Amino acid sequence: MNRIYFDNAATTALDPRVLEAMMPYLTEKFGNPSSIYSYGRESRLAIENARKSVAKILNAHPAEIFFTSGGTESSNTAIAAALHNLGCRHIISSPIEHHATSHTVEYYHRREGVALSWVKLLPDGHIDLEDLERLLAASKDRTLVSLMHANNEIGNLLDLHAVGNICKKYNAIFHSDTVQTVGHYPFDLRNTPVHFITGAGHKFHGPKGVGILYVNENVQIQPLLHGGAQERNMRAGTENLYGIVGFAKALELAMASHAEDAAYIRELKQYMADQLKEKVGHVEFNGDAFGRSLYTVLNVSFPKSEKSEMILFNMDINGICASGGSACTSGADLGSHVIREVNSNPNQVAVRFSFCRQNTKEEIDAVVEKLNGML
Amino acid sequence: MNRIYFDNAATTALDPRVLEAMMPYLTEKFGNPSSIYSYGRESRLAIENARKSVAKILNAHPAEIFFTSGGTESSNTAIAAALHNLGCRHIISSPIEHHATSHTVEYYHRREGVALSWVKLLPDGHIDLEDLERLLAASKDRTLVSLMHANNEIGNLLDLHAVGNICKKYNAIFHSDTVQTVGHYPFDLRNTPVHFITGAGHKFHGPKGVGILYVNENVQIQPLLHGGAQERNMRAGTENLYGIVGFAKALELAMASHAEDAAYIRELKQYMADQLKEKVGHVEFNGDAFGRSLYTVLNVSFPKSEKSEMILFNMDINGICASGGSACTSGADLGSHVIREVNSNPNQVAVRFSFCRQNTKEEIDAVVEKLNGML
Repeated sequence: MNRIYFDNAATTALDPRVLEAMMPYLTEKFGNPSSIYSYGRESRLAIENARKSVAKILNAHPAEIFFTSGGTESSNTAIAAALHNLGCRHIISSPIEHHATSHTVEYYHRREGVALSWVKLLPDGHIDLEDLERLLAASKDRTLVSLMHANNEIGNLLDLHAVGNICKKYNAIFHSDTVQTVGHYPFDLRNTPVHFITGAGHKFHGPKGVGILYVNENVQIQPLLHGGAQERNMRAGTENLYGIVGFAKALELAMASHAEDAAYIRELKQYMADQLKEKVGHVEFNGDAFGRSLYTVLNVSFPKSEKSEMILFNMDINGICASGGSACTSGADLGSHVIREVNSNPNQVAVRFSFCRQNTKEEIDAVVEKLNGML
Repeated sequence: MNRIYFDNAATTALDPRVLEAMMPYLTEKFGNPSSIYSYGRESRLAIENARKSVAKILNAHPAEIFFTSGGTESSNTAIAAALHNLGCRHIISSPIEHHATSHTVEYYHRREGVALSWVKLLPDGHIDLEDLERLLAASKDRTLVSLMHANNEIGNLLDLHAVGNICKKYNAIFHSDTVQTVGHYPFDLRNTPVHFITGAGHKFHGPKGVGILYVNENVQIQPLLHGGAQERNMRAGTENLYGIVGFAKALELAMASHAEDAAYIRELKQYMADQLKEKVGHVEFNGDAFGRSLYTVLNVSFPKSEKSEMILFNMDINGICASGGSACTSGADLGSHVIREVNSNPNQVAVRFSFCRQNTKEEIDAVVEKLNGML
């Protein structure tokens, strides 16, 4: 049975060209980047070249890019720094953030008594920017606004400029979890009013276990992980050399073919939606699916029935990889907190399909046909 | 020019057999270990098998082993947890810890007002256990004792059982940075009175960017990184799948040939010391070099002269990789805090040579000959 992988928002296949770029560092070039001899400096150079390349693509300064172990560590670092180094005593976030944000802000709320507000959502799942402004206007303390750029489950896209400008007006710190958009959309960070963004290599055909944190040059923060002087004293621990090289290579490749890939994948998404409406019927799409939305994600609600409640199970049996929510929460088995927020219909079952440039219309045809027997 | 790599305490070459074990996960097996479909479960299974293998080798329960991004994150997690979850309000550590410990305990001392005491050293650099007991006896609060198993610069080995038993007597929490000993010495954690130990794959021919934290089953802690439910809610973030598989494989290989490797490397260390005394003369060895000491590390002091102050530079020019201190601190260029503590002679220059099973006596002969011209 051929596997059909429609879960690219969970993780993506490593691009063979990325692995090729990593291989020298997995074999002969193993020097510790912090060692001062030339063999270590070669490794350091690879890291600094990776940093420059990432910075250039995001239109940031190299000094604003820090390599981490992934998106979760990056968001944890940004949130802790906003509270501990930038004077924030109030956090505004949304009820549909990834747990890397929501569990972190809840932790500091409980542990350190930081005030925590949840911004309202509009019916289509977008952030209610008027409510955000009301919350900021009423805030007595300096505030951290943490809102994700693209929702990982329903795909809704945030207007970083609009939110950033509101934050600016109230002297708030703005962190955005951009894990689903780095490598998928162009960034122009020098002209974007945001203090922290994050990225994870494995979301765009790069390696797992490596990510970035962008820290705007106008804010000075302390590390989350203390120890050695790596990453200019901002992230201790021997560098994940091949991971960092792979992250940069994957980002280069992703953005080199971004326009074509995006058009192609957007067409796949539309095609799947059309096919579902035509061949399956009775489907709804969660979030602002065909408006301001990730071109990679299609979140579909099917009518609930004894059979459709087993849909994830039956897709698995049929070799179809798709998810009910974020992979990161699947262990909990409580269903998706995002879907609960944006879709109040208890008689539906939601499935997230997420695509990449390797997927095809033939795969969609095969999935739609099989889905018909699962409902 | 052939490179001679005598800096294996900084990092080691990835064993080709480890890379081979990682390759399936760098190519076709890319599923997210947290995804619930079978393709994700295959990845999960690889991680759980890695955990079981690591646990078995260390004689721990699999539930006591957590995968992290490396030794630094592991030590940061243990220290934060001891303070935040286990009621410790006093930390006892030593002045010769790795910065992953010393900078972390200093951070919490400054930020949270936790009391911080430095235990005295004996003249040979070993921890003064009587002073440790005095400090514990005088402590009003529950105490975290953080002392490394083997010093990464001078190689001195701590008696984990002796320290653990003293900690037990005073109901203290015991964390040991075992980054230089996991993969180099047998562990029997079920019968060792320690609450937290750490490991880093790249110190024993495994991958960079992955480590473990052992948490004794008798203590319950919260994560340092908040987010998804990975690692049984103990370490959020998509798992570094290939890194974890590589860590386990490297540990298996290291311990399978440990007895022979240790004997061979110990002989190299002794041979280098003998050759230095015979051919170079006027050398001293820092720490308890031929007593309770890592078989991998030889820390040598040469008489200071205009020429010898350039020794690291000249070794580099000659293709010899060795270090003046920990690679993690080399950016700082302040010299080694460890050497300052154990060797008060300002008229000496210290160099750490550290060996692995790939090194040879011929390499030592070549290095000793070249060193003669650098002094």
